[in-house]
Amino acid sequence: MADEPGSQSSPLQLFNSIVTQGEHVRSLKEGKAPKDEIDSAVKSLLSLKMSYKALVGEEYSPDCPPGNPAPRSKSGLEATEGCEDFVDPWTVRTSSAKGIDYDKLIVQFGSSKIDKELINRVERATHQRPHRFLRRGIFFSHRDMNQVLDAYENQKPFYLYTGRGPSSEAMHVGHLIPFIFTKWLQDVFNVPLVVQMSDDEKYLWKDLTLEQAYGYTLENAKDIIACGFDINKTFIFSDLEYMGMSPGFYKNVVKIQKHVTFNQVKGIFGFTDSDCIGKISFPAVQAAPSFSNSFPQIFHGRADIQCLIPCAIDQDPYFRMTRDVAPRIGYPKPALLHSTFFPALQGAQTKMSASDPNSSIFLTDSAKQIKTKVNKHAFSGGRDTVEEHRQFGGNCDVDVSFMYLTFFLEDDDRLEQIRKDYTSGAMLTGELKKTLIEVLQPLIAEHQARRKEVTDEMVKEFMTPRKLSFHFQ
Amino acid sequence: MADEPGSQSSPLQLFNSIVTQGEHVRSLKEGKAPKDEIDSAVKSLLSLKMSYKALVGEEYSPDCPPGNPAPRSKSGLEATEGCEDFVDPWTVRTSSAKGIDYDKLIVQFGSSKIDKELINRVERATHQRPHRFLRRGIFFSHRDMNQVLDAYENQKPFYLYTGRGPSSEAMHVGHLIPFIFTKWLQDVFNVPLVVQMSDDEKYLWKDLTLEQAYGYTLENAKDIIACGFDINKTFIFSDLEYMGMSPGFYKNVVKIQKHVTFNQVKGIFGFTDSDCIGKISFPAVQAAPSFSNSFPQIFHGRADIQCLIPCAIDQDPYFRMTRDVAPRIGYPKPALLHSTFFPALQGAQTKMSASDPNSSIFLTDSAKQIKTKVNKHAFSGGRDTVEEHRQFGGNCDVDVSFMYLTFFLEDDDRLEQIRKDYTSGAMLTGELKKTLIEVLQPLIAEHQARRKEVTDEMVKEFMTPRKLSFHFQ
Repeated sequence: MADEPGSQSSPLQLFNSIVTQGEHVRSLKEGKAPKDEIDSAVKSLLSLKMSYKALVGEEYSPDCPPGNPAPRSKSGLEATEGCEDFVDPWTVRTSSAKGIDYDKLIVQFGSSKIDKELINRVERATHQRPHRFLRRGIFFSHRDMNQVLDAYENQKPFYLYTGRGPSSEAMHVGHLIPFIFTKWLQDVFNVPLVVQMSDDEKYLWKDLTLEQAYGYTLENAKDIIACGFDINKTFIFSDLEYMGMSPGFYKNVVKIQKHVTFNQVKGIFGFTDSDCIGKISFPAVQAAPSFSNSFPQIFHGRADIQCLIPCAIDQDPYFRMTRDVAPRIGYPKPALLHSTFFPALQGAQTKMSASDPNSSIFLTDSAKQIKTKVNKHAFSGGRDTVEEHRQFGGNCDVDVSFMYLTFFLEDDDRLEQIRKDYTSGAMLTGELKKTLIEVLQPLIAEHQARRKEVTDEMVKEFMTPRKLSFHFQ
Repeated sequence: MADEPGSQSSPLQLFNSIVTQGEHVRSLKEGKAPKDEIDSAVKSLLSLKMSYKALVGEEYSPDCPPGNPAPRSKSGLEATEGCEDFVDPWTVRTSSAKGIDYDKLIVQFGSSKIDKELINRVERATHQRPHRFLRRGIFFSHRDMNQVLDAYENQKPFYLYTGRGPSSEAMHVGHLIPFIFTKWLQDVFNVPLVVQMSDDEKYLWKDLTLEQAYGYTLENAKDIIACGFDINKTFIFSDLEYMGMSPGFYKNVVKIQKHVTFNQVKGIFGFTDSDCIGKISFPAVQAAPSFSNSFPQIFHGRADIQCLIPCAIDQDPYFRMTRDVAPRIGYPKPALLHSTFFPALQGAQTKMSASDPNSSIFLTDSAKQIKTKVNKHAFSGGRDTVEEHRQFGGNCDVDVSFMYLTFFLEDDDRLEQIRKDYTSGAMLTGELKKTLIEVLQPLIAEHQARRKEVTDEMVKEFMTPRKLSFHFQ
């Protein structure tokens, strides 16, 4: 069963308890139950609602489960009208050119900030300089990372789980963020990694055939492998393929599906009665790799190995659900590391779209395309004229070229110098863009060179269920 | 896409079209669309409703999808208050001691009666005397059986699919009905058979662990094998196990799940928002074996082999859904043969319950238990006193012992003689029960003897995905 009600409950558990208790009260009233029985049930309901308000800081509202800032609409559009940012796996929206207010998001989602103390702890544990994504707050939020470090310091094993929804052949630099960071985590902690290619999800959500979705899995796997993952410690799997190859995966999917109601996925993901039953049940498929016995070939059937999931914050709803279910089916809750979103060239208000070639730098872009795209499309925080820029300076907080540099320029000092110079007006927009182009061109060229070396045989090996070199007690 | 609307549509397709068009009209009105656009959409809606009434014989009602006689309630109880029989996979209820009115059910479900002509055709095609279940209307309804016979007469292949939900170790004689008949079909048509053990379903619906559900699968498989199936032509599979062993099964499940909405399963199965997402998506798992490429090892990846499903009529909702989806994903619709229900010892008003040992004869019962149960519990159509019985005769239509004899006594002439003698009063209830006991005792003893010979190795072989001896063009 779930945690004890009251102080131990998560906002979502409390929300679900209120829904259940509300239904109970209604059924008592409909069944004309004795008045004192109804009164007592109503009293419990009110007390649950008060606990909810105390925990979440907002009144319980049946249309507004915790973590979702406003009632859901079909398009997600109305959700932002109240000036709040809106984030779920399909919609990221903010009205601010600086992008999402991530501090607010931490409060909304109930996660924890990755603070200096935690970063120092990672450094002490791994004896490695923290990755620039940690130093610069790109991975900014977590759940239970201290538990993972406790375990690691006690020589207890954990594994990494991340993934990609292969909706097209074209991946852009933003798609690399979780993989770049995950590769670093794999290296510094020396742990196994499973990568889910959710081609079943893309088949369900998009106008694709199964064959197309699986084809994108194979193409995208090459880009992921090109990030440098250790073939001896990495298993990449297609849902469509692996479900039919693993004795453990489907069993965990069914276990999760037994412990999540339609009411819950409606609350978490905004599904409606018109959605297909595939979408409605898919969250269990994304949840299942969080449990180590989904990979008996790696973990020898053990169900108790801690999982750590690096992902963009928009995937958190899946794992809030997973963490809610875990103790009820006897598994440890997965820990999480959340990244910010990679901004579109046009500005940080939205996530990028793989279907708009000008919204980002693609991994297939030539040096010339990169130059043209940055110069033509990267939203600038500069002034309208050189004179004004020299006088008042540019705004790094909204300048997309500067944001991209925070993702990809390794040298902290140089980045800080650029920030100062651009802000003061000493550096012009053209110069800033030139710096970014000079960083991106070799980065993409090197990726392309590594990808060329990824053979079909390598993809096949990465995707074969097998033992990984993984030592655990 | 689905069949053309109009004459080609099934009641369910038409029902769903009305739901969709209704939503369209509502959205036009909400969006304050031009009046003529709304008028035209309303006109289409009314025309769909008229087609529906013409086809189904009842007004369209949003709470009452075709095949469901009354709005669904949580318990299914209210559904029978209007004197109508109620049948779905979880509830079979009638107020008549004669049992369900199957002719009405054919009209409600939109299936076809198995008439003398069809039975003669089966006899001509197989050169075999029709099975007593056909001769006596125990398999009474079908969908597309003529298509199967067309194909068979043209040397085109088909295969059989039936199944069992393993909810306990204990199976009763009623559970054997579909298997006895399926074995006969396998023999006379010489075709392969797949048997689904839906242990995932039982895990989702009952208070069972995965291990318990799978354990019941193995136990029940022994009883099924004891019916005499040809090991070279029969594949028995556990959903929990086979999903992780087949490249084709999960792909078909996802395909089906993409083409069925929550609205549809709500209409067909009465699911509610409080049901777990496992239940909501399960119908796709029961549907998938209807398509031959779920078994690539048997059908060499071919997707076009016709499927014939012998099952009790309460399973029809699953296959109405399956037949609705089939053309939209490019597969042939499965054909069906429906059986009546096997009555409980206490009377034909209800289906039997595996949890009430006195409600039926179990496959584990001793000769003595059989004798006691029949004598003590079999509902009698006889009179209160011998004198009255001699004078007025008994009622075979409600007498459970006589009903059981129609299932198990092979000799038509003897059965007819018993019917006459019991109706006239020449045969007493004790004599009728004695006859039944004499039929059941050796039947159960022989089953037990055959079951004893079923080894774990045989179960393993039946359940191993493998080639079957199956010749097709």
